[in-house]
Amino acid sequence: MLVNTSHPGNIGASARAMKNMGLSNLALVDPEDFPSGVAVGRAASAIDIIESAQIFDSLEAAIADCSLVIGTSARSRKIPWPMLSPEQTAAKVLAEIDRNKVALVFGREDAGLNNDELQLCHYHVQIPTNENYSSLNLAAAVMVISYELRKAFAAESDNSEVKEDGFWDQEKATGEQVEHFYNHLERVMVAIDFHDPENPRQLMQRMRRLFSRIRIDVMEMNILRGILTNIELRIKNKQK
Amino acid sequence: MLVNTSHPGNIGASARAMKNMGLSNLALVDPEDFPSGVAVGRAASAIDIIESAQIFDSLEAAIADCSLVIGTSARSRKIPWPMLSPEQTAAKVLAEIDRNKVALVFGREDAGLNNDELQLCHYHVQIPTNENYSSLNLAAAVMVISYELRKAFAAESDNSEVKEDGFWDQEKATGEQVEHFYNHLERVMVAIDFHDPENPRQLMQRMRRLFSRIRIDVMEMNILRGILTNIELRIKNKQK
Repeated sequence: MLVNTSHPGNIGASARAMKNMGLSNLALVDPEDFPSGVAVGRAASAIDIIESAQIFDSLEAAIADCSLVIGTSARSRKIPWPMLSPEQTAAKVLAEIDRNKVALVFGREDAGLNNDELQLCHYHVQIPTNENYSSLNLAAAVMVISYELRKAFAAESDNSEVKEDGFWDQEKATGEQVEHFYNHLERVMVAIDFHDPENPRQLMQRMRRLFSRIRIDVMEMNILRGILTNIELRIKNKQK
Repeated sequence: MLVNTSHPGNIGASARAMKNMGLSNLALVDPEDFPSGVAVGRAASAIDIIESAQIFDSLEAAIADCSLVIGTSARSRKIPWPMLSPEQTAAKVLAEIDRNKVALVFGREDAGLNNDELQLCHYHVQIPTNENYSSLNLAAAVMVISYELRKAFAAESDNSEVKEDGFWDQEKATGEQVEHFYNHLERVMVAIDFHDPENPRQLMQRMRRLFSRIRIDVMEMNILRGILTNIELRIKNKQK
């Protein structure tokens, strides 16, 4: 829900941010310049959200059927109001969305929501900012809140988070394969006069520490063993 | 770090998002239209960030003195790369920022980072999105990552846990040092007949992926370069 927006570009960019994060119901309260080609342009592939946006004369009308209303507020006002972080906002929305209609309200570009509008909200949400420059672009604020909602929904549908091992294209090498590699590496380092087992200077320890920081996969192991073998062959051939 | 940005408005909006979240060092790689009044306009009160932005010809030059490079990627590529969520990205940056220079890299509006650029990164970060519309506006992506950084910094000032890298005994190698290593490695692999640049079979990509997972430190880099040099010497001596 965007209140009294001045610049249609911000409406378009907000629609895009919403769609990117899987949201779809946009309401506009008394927009200054809408419909607008600029809004459509900035919406990119979120035109459907612009086209289906509902338009209201007042915030009161817009939230008439909502039972949870959360409004953005840059700083706490004269009368302190229950405040949420963006994460807490997402948690609240998630807890209610199945049963109640929820409104997230964003104010004017220059002045935010006025006191009457803020008092129509059950909670205020404040996005943490640099104290020296706290004025967020409207679409940037929509992006942050929408992103936290997306994260909360994803976490609820049981961890859609990217896991390192879930998508890797190769099996990890086994401990035995890795030990063979270290032995091979040591033989080659001796052969090229880089390593003296009589005076090891922690070289093998450092190599072990280096390669154990990654979990080498089977194809990488084959490549490294292939390199070592070719070095040995090359040295032998030259000796003939 | 914004790579090859088409629209100067996105540069301005990104600068504003950064300043809102307390960040300040903006680097531009080959921007299409900069300096620009449009960028200044969209930056609002973040003009200082626009004015002090560093400009580079290539991503390689821009990250030369960085030892942790994280690039945004819309989807996983042919060869999967270590992936982070925005939150994990913020945690990584926070853990290193006191000791190492860190780059967060954002690609073109239409096509993101290309494969060569993605391979210059230690990690890729993916912002979770609606599968049906995953194309974020550039400044919106900058906003999300900057916001997670802000949250992580705020959380850190509350607790001071022991961090993984706090006790490491060596500095991490810089991007430039690592590139020299890859070049040297490729020369040696060619010399031992392991690698044919005419028929590369993704070999260098796999080597890059392997070593970028390790985050090599300076002493390890010296050891590996020393090994490569000894292989070369040994091959030459045998040829005499």
